[in-house]
Amino acid sequence: MRTKAAVALEAGKPLEIMDVNLEGPKAGEVLVEIKATGICHTDEFTRSGGDPEGLFPAILGHEGAGVVMEVGAGVTSVKPGDHVIPLYTPECRACPSCLSRKTNLCTAIRSTQGQGLMPDGTSRFSTLDGDPLFHYMGCSTFANHTVLPEIAVAKIREDAPFDKVCYIGCGVTTGVGAVINTAKVEIGAKAAVFGLGGIGLNVIQGLRMAGADMIIGVDINPEKKAKAEYFGMTHFVNPNEVENVAQEIVELTKTKADRIGGADYSFDCTGNVEVMRAALECTHRGWGESVIIGVAPAGAEISTRPFQLVTGRVWKGSAFGGARGRTDVPQIVEWYMDGKIEIDPMITHTLSLDQINTGFDLMHAGESIRSVVVY
Amino acid sequence: MRTKAAVALEAGKPLEIMDVNLEGPKAGEVLVEIKATGICHTDEFTRSGGDPEGLFPAILGHEGAGVVMEVGAGVTSVKPGDHVIPLYTPECRACPSCLSRKTNLCTAIRSTQGQGLMPDGTSRFSTLDGDPLFHYMGCSTFANHTVLPEIAVAKIREDAPFDKVCYIGCGVTTGVGAVINTAKVEIGAKAAVFGLGGIGLNVIQGLRMAGADMIIGVDINPEKKAKAEYFGMTHFVNPNEVENVAQEIVELTKTKADRIGGADYSFDCTGNVEVMRAALECTHRGWGESVIIGVAPAGAEISTRPFQLVTGRVWKGSAFGGARGRTDVPQIVEWYMDGKIEIDPMITHTLSLDQINTGFDLMHAGESIRSVVVY
Ligand SMILES: NC(=O)c1ccc[n+]([C@@H]2O[C@H](COP(=O)([O-])OP(=O)(O)OC[C@H]3O[C@@H](n4cnc5c(N)ncnc54)[C@H](O)[C@@H]3O)[C@@H](O)[C@H]2O)c1
Ligand SMILES: NC(=O)c1ccc[n+]([C@@H]2O[C@H](COP(=O)([O-])OP(=O)(O)OC[C@H]3O[C@@H](n4cnc5c(N)ncnc54)[C@H](O)[C@@H]3O)[C@@H](O)[C@H]2O)c1
Ligand SMILES: [Zn+2]
Ligand SMILES: [Zn+2]
Ligand SMILES: [Zn+2]
Ligand SMILES: [Zn+2]
Repeated sequence: MRTKAAVALEAGKPLEIMDVNLEGPKAGEVLVEIKATGICHTDEFTRSGGDPEGLFPAILGHEGAGVVMEVGAGVTSVKPGDHVIPLYTPECRACPSCLSRKTNLCTAIRSTQGQGLMPDGTSRFSTLDGDPLFHYMGCSTFANHTVLPEIAVAKIREDAPFDKVCYIGCGVTTGVGAVINTAKVEIGAKAAVFGLGGIGLNVIQGLRMAGADMIIGVDINPEKKAKAEYFGMTHFVNPNEVENVAQEIVELTKTKADRIGGADYSFDCTGNVEVMRAALECTHRGWGESVIIGVAPAGAEISTRPFQLVTGRVWKGSAFGGARGRTDVPQIVEWYMDGKIEIDPMITHTLSLDQINTGFDLMHAGESIRSVVVY
Repeated sequence: MRTKAAVALEAGKPLEIMDVNLEGPKAGEVLVEIKATGICHTDEFTRSGGDPEGLFPAILGHEGAGVVMEVGAGVTSVKPGDHVIPLYTPECRACPSCLSRKTNLCTAIRSTQGQGLMPDGTSRFSTLDGDPLFHYMGCSTFANHTVLPEIAVAKIREDAPFDKVCYIGCGVTTGVGAVINTAKVEIGAKAAVFGLGGIGLNVIQGLRMAGADMIIGVDINPEKKAKAEYFGMTHFVNPNEVENVAQEIVELTKTKADRIGGADYSFDCTGNVEVMRAALECTHRGWGESVIIGVAPAGAEISTRPFQLVTGRVWKGSAFGGARGRTDVPQIVEWYMDGKIEIDPMITHTLSLDQINTGFDLMHAGESIRSVVVY
């Protein structure tokens, strides 16, 4: 079939809107009509050429929602008409990772996904001239129709609005999940969130849901304060207004009984390795845990004195919020529908596919939290 | 009273054996006759001047065992005649750390201990001329008699031999505890241990007790192999004989079912920050945990790409094996007496106090695992 897509022909170039060919689903695959897709920093990281492993030409996009149109041989868990969210972290429920009970990082199709291909090692997309186009993160939601492995779709309830729940395909799950699955924050905790963009706001609402007492937001842009407060931030620190942001957080968290101070949990949502260090070092001696969510520039490294860890701090990271896609994503959709989490105020811009490059411009200008393309 | 001690008068100088004055215990303190003390790297770190926070003149030593001779006002948990192990990590059971259920790093007397003083801000030791001598790590077991806060002694069974269980005051608990309390290793795990000195051997016997399937030891000194095998090491890697030690461990741990590979747990027992990085990077994507035990030179920093953590590895550290001194140390003594753990083959040299500088020489020559001074 033919479908319309925004294609990344070359690193650093705007996406080009064009018709492309899409082959039907092979065994174990499904054809999905994408109804809406968010535009995420990870798309931009690849589009811009910042990711040394980026492949071109490719159809980017990994934060979508849509409807199953056709299933390949042997597909049993979804059928035409089902509403789904594509998963860049699949959940096969059979690989050593899925069976470990310790990670969400399913490895069933990892190598072909990393090569921009379906599990059989080929692409379903091609130009009208017949030249193959790479898939992206196993999703390619910047096409109106896409083919996905069955293990890479989460079936969701049918009354959930596509133009909102598409954000659960990446940002919401990443932020909320980092709190719930990775840090396992408990009621009464004190937390610090570095970077109040879309990911940071979702961490904040995850912390509110988890019952955190103190939610300290950190951003160099003071305009981020109001929205973060709306989502549950209780204190704000601008690193440009204090001498040492880690020390500031230590002071803020001291109590009469606890003269040591420090956050119980911290989250990096900036991708800046210096911020990651501050996020670790602001946590409490003895038990503070710092979770890296941000994606650093190629080659950048984190550092600290080992004493920070020997005295009880823990440094970890989170990918896709530690969420198992097929199991946890439908649950997050439920939470949204039940009003336990909010998404609507984060969708600041809704665009058509033709306007997709505007979405990247808005991201660069820091004007959007999330731009969503509706097909 | 007067007692005999090995005194560190100046950084970098051998210890001097001399008589010193010791004041009796004040309220909440106990006077202990030290029967035996191990000589640990941490003593050497301070003696040599490597620790920028080291204080002189001081009575070093923190790995002892002895008998309570006198108790100060208000002391209720021990009485004269009780056998005890001094604790450089006390356990007050009342501070925010002790009550957190998350750390063993009691903070009740942290600041005075760091200043080489008893909790009231003074020293019990002085030269015969009346000049004060600093306490060390709250213990000063290089004196035949010492004064300790009540919260810094663990009461142990009376049939335990002092010249062996003194090692539980630091090395044994540090190694075994890192496995049990910090990493919480489970049956069937695959683990890598970097550095096969005293700490590494104790990590290995902790792993054996925890039921690990694979215990990979790493040391640049091939002479360490035999003893490590005796304690439970199943595989040995010499970093000088392979291209990349982390990659070697990843290969060793691959199975037919798991083509990713990596240790479930790793432990740095070297204090070398490059080794700490390899120890992190040899762990399994998705869930590998690396525990830093070694103490790095002043100012040295650990580094890695944040992607290592974002893809599921966890970097942590362990001080005193995460053990609560008064609660866990008596239990480890029980394990020793029951034969669940071994100590005797690790005590390679027994010295008199007059020979204590020989103990430091043996450490430098790499000839001892542990030298113990018996009073
Ligand atoms: N681990 C994952 O699974 C995953 C998934 C999605 C996105 N991400 C990453 O999360 C990060 C955040 O994404 P986002 O969409 O929220 O980005 P964003 O650009 O919307 O937000 C980043 C925020 O950080 C602030 N900031 C920048 N430098 C700062 C500093 N030095 N100190 C404090 N604040 C600073 C900015 O002002 C901004 O508000 C990105 O690196 C993205 O690639 C990770
Ligand atoms: N965290 C704590 O509570 C705590 C307590 C006690 C000791 N320590 C620290 O633990 C560390 C180990 O103590 P130890 O008594 O076992 O020391 P040790 O000197 O007996 O053993 C160190 C071993 O590491 C090996 N080694 C050195 N460089 C290496 C390399 N690049 N790769 C592989 N192996 C290497 C040496 O050959 C030696 O066998 C020290 O740094 C010590 O200060 C920490
Ligand atoms: Zn994303
Ligand atoms: Zn899987
Ligand atoms: Zn020690
Ligand atoms: Zn305490």
